[in-house]
Amino acid sequence: MFVRMRARLLLALVLVLCGVPAADSEGALAAPDRRTPAEIVAGAAAGDWIDIRPEDLLVMTLAPDAKGRPRTVILQLAPAPVSAGWVANIRRLAAARWWDGASVYRVQDNYVAQWGHAEGAEPARARALPDGLVAVPEADYVTRVAIAAREAATRRLTSRTSRVDPYAGRSFFLDGWPMASDNLSDSPVVDAQTGRPPAARTHEGAWPVHCYGAVGVARGMPPDTGSGTDLYVVIGHAPRQLDRNIALVGRVIEGIEHLAGLPRGPAPMGVHDDAGARTPIASVRLASDLPAAERPRLQFLATETEVFGRYADARANRRDPFYLVPAGGADICNIPVPIRRRP
Amino acid sequence: MFVRMRARLLLALVLVLCGVPAADSEGALAAPDRRTPAEIVAGAAAGDWIDIRPEDLLVMTLAPDAKGRPRTVILQLAPAPVSAGWVANIRRLAAARWWDGASVYRVQDNYVAQWGHAEGAEPARARALPDGLVAVPEADYVTRVAIAAREAATRRLTSRTSRVDPYAGRSFFLDGWPMASDNLSDSPVVDAQTGRPPAARTHEGAWPVHCYGAVGVARGMPPDTGSGTDLYVVIGHAPRQLDRNIALVGRVIEGIEHLAGLPRGPAPMGVHDDAGARTPIASVRLASDLPAAERPRLQFLATETEVFGRYADARANRRDPFYLVPAGGADICNIPVPIRRRP
Repeated sequence: MFVRMRARLLLALVLVLCGVPAADSEGALAAPDRRTPAEIVAGAAAGDWIDIRPEDLLVMTLAPDAKGRPRTVILQLAPAPVSAGWVANIRRLAAARWWDGASVYRVQDNYVAQWGHAEGAEPARARALPDGLVAVPEADYVTRVAIAAREAATRRLTSRTSRVDPYAGRSFFLDGWPMASDNLSDSPVVDAQTGRPPAARTHEGAWPVHCYGAVGVARGMPPDTGSGTDLYVVIGHAPRQLDRNIALVGRVIEGIEHLAGLPRGPAPMGVHDDAGARTPIASVRLASDLPAAERPRLQFLATETEVFGRYADARANRRDPFYLVPAGGADICNIPVPIRRRP
Repeated sequence: MFVRMRARLLLALVLVLCGVPAADSEGALAAPDRRTPAEIVAGAAAGDWIDIRPEDLLVMTLAPDAKGRPRTVILQLAPAPVSAGWVANIRRLAAARWWDGASVYRVQDNYVAQWGHAEGAEPARARALPDGLVAVPEADYVTRVAIAAREAATRRLTSRTSRVDPYAGRSFFLDGWPMASDNLSDSPVVDAQTGRPPAARTHEGAWPVHCYGAVGVARGMPPDTGSGTDLYVVIGHAPRQLDRNIALVGRVIEGIEHLAGLPRGPAPMGVHDDAGARTPIASVRLASDLPAAERPRLQFLATETEVFGRYADARANRRDPFYLVPAGGADICNIPVPIRRRP
């Protein structure tokens, strides 16, 4: 009996060291989860998914490809208060149909694809900006975020997935968005007095991070912060050096292959000087400005759920049969938030 | 005088904390280096560059693109003893012209492009493997690396660039290659007895890492380790979960845009089931098997040099005028080893 208990204790210790929950709530030993991240996500309940509001979706329609096939790219705008000034500008620009007739004029390998009205593309007429655009200060690259109790839950669930962030004190998910911070304290997940999670907490200095698919606002030299007329999407390894140096306003959640797969531009910074090599943009619309029947209905997996924690853990520690050695960690950009069409 | 000295001390301390060399060898305060990483590399001396041997270069010629433009991709094979068994197989396969007539049959967004002889591509004849291919054991995913004094120098130079590696105990460059290890001790850079760098040191358990452009050996389920007939290249955010789980044999050092920019495959895992959508490979040759005049002459920046340390530091802390906030760190895949054509 003693030997058997020792063996169980030892096994539990090994499982803890490997980052696996050693026991379920009944106290029984739980087997390691050998599902793939996709299989774990497929097991999420309907209530684990959050509908993306139509006013948070941008539908960008590119010209058809060389074989006449349609190319649609769907962007999700970042949740307030992250980059709120720029996001408001982008909604105004879309409502004014600013990008109709624009183009993807820059494609730089392992970096970004960028769109807007290319320099010299419309010499004959001056294009008027819509009213109401704001000049956002550089200070807004970093956001004062009200961290709700949900964030504490995310932190708990994902703490075992990421040892550290090379670019920040820590990284975490906030309302489905990858964020980083230098001064977020490792305060207890529960309040010592009440035994419950803190209701809400304000901290200064969190920022969205440049992961694959992240969409940002092109700008000139400081103190310019960009208005939102020209946007880029990350199509390579996360260029995290841009964090806190440029505004992130969203992410591509469908159709990124239509941007990441474009021919790279031959000029410096991947620019297509040859107008014929640019990819024309037919239109960009907020989904809320489309007829209801044409609105794409997309959902993201809530990052505060138990299933997201299991998914993140599986991204960091692959235990499905193809793998021999779990990595023991993952950087936040290697834990993409699952997206799906609403069933 | 005292006040002035205190101010100088304080400034020096601030510079040290910011990762900037506080003083040059003359003891004078050095200004922060505000050059871009590319500008720093451009200032490297001729002797800082290392010629890549022709037997370490693979020249892959794809069919011309839709506009008839040539597409050449150049790969550098990993330095021995990293993945030596698979690298030997690949040299044999290239010498036997194994990939002539093969294709890029898989392009999965934000993951890999993969080539070889697609299933069902040659129903009419059996393609014979060349003699001498070896079956490499799984244990060789991790390499016992003899760490020379050079590695200690690299470690010193890059220690300020990377706080941590989310996937390993530490990461470092070995002979121009990004590597990781869990058990590399932080022993002193100089031997305490001799005051000189340790001459050489063997440690077990270093492995090459999956960065953008890394080339690996496709395989089936374990214990298969792949022969090298089918290769993939990373075309997205570093999928570090593959480290230690699959063999890395090299990296694309020129022309990766011809692979990363290909249309994504519509079948699961990005496969192009439609043979007409695959990209034909005309030939793959070791540069050493080409006439001398046709060999590409490429160099990489030696990772043990002072200039590489400055470059790595600038990747982690951008101080050029476009940037407001230096990141304070970088992951190893965001410090690509500079490559150039030999002048």
